[in-house]
Amino acid sequence: MSDRFATRPGEVELGFDPAERPDATLHFIGRLRSPWSEGDCPRNVRAARETGKAAHIELAPEFLPGLEGLEVGQPVVLIYWMYRARRDLIRQVPRHADGARGTFALRSPVRPNPLAMSVVKITGIDLEAGTVGIDAIDCFDGTPLVDIKPWIGTVDDPA
Amino acid sequence: MSDRFATRPGEVELGFDPAERPDATLHFIGRLRSPWSEGDCPRNVRAARETGKAAHIELAPEFLPGLEGLEVGQPVVLIYWMYRARRDLIRQVPRHADGARGTFALRSPVRPNPLAMSVVKITGIDLEAGTVGIDAIDCFDGTPLVDIKPWIGTVDDPA
Repeated sequence: MSDRFATRPGEVELGFDPAERPDATLHFIGRLRSPWSEGDCPRNVRAARETGKAAHIELAPEFLPGLEGLEVGQPVVLIYWMYRARRDLIRQVPRHADGARGTFALRSPVRPNPLAMSVVKITGIDLEAGTVGIDAIDCFDGTPLVDIKPWIGTVDDPA
Repeated sequence: MSDRFATRPGEVELGFDPAERPDATLHFIGRLRSPWSEGDCPRNVRAARETGKAAHIELAPEFLPGLEGLEVGQPVVLIYWMYRARRDLIRQVPRHADGARGTFALRSPVRPNPLAMSVVKITGIDLEAGTVGIDAIDCFDGTPLVDIKPWIGTVDDPA
């Protein structure tokens, strides 16, 4: 097992890999293109935004009609698949946090279903190229995209 | 095909079922227990909240250590699997909307990957019972749960 998958003191493993107990399947709708690779990836979308570096979605052609009605400037929820993360840690000791926490109290990519969720703004839509510009993203270049949803303030803001 | 799966004028089918082209697998971590079934389900979590009816999560026992660090009153992001929704409509004519829109411009459960996302507040945590109380949810009783994440205003609020 690589260093990336080393278990730190205080961390708790599930004892099984959720990948080996499938209940449903995902189909990737495209990829996120970002400036980031291992070692320089911002830890969340706010940090990514602060770098001033944009990103874009490459949508698979069959899904392009699904963009109809989305507009430049609009905030959207992206759900994407952190494909390199292990799935079997239920208690973690992240480098940046003070002490151990349960996986569901963390935004770590390491979780039973390694889905990430970010709210980003659409900066452009190019149906010919099959791309959607977004203001920022916090994942590696090439990360698989699972869903795009309109963000709705009156529903999604808990305040 | 049942009425529930009828395609309306103006709707566009993908021509394949994304369920039959799996790229990754999900493992359900529990179920959402709600007062809702077909015919009376609120259309979003705000509408669910306005009914005054609470809900709760039943977490599978092996995932309970993952709750450590979550607190009553805290907003969390829930990701859940709308298991009864068809996955092959890329342009839709929802009953409540005016005209057709692309699937990614809608919060309809009908989408290539029928994941729903809601921000809810924790109202109680009972580790012995394996349940997490939440203020509201907008899905059928028994809907499979995929993830719980802390909602972080400085990251998740686009305003």
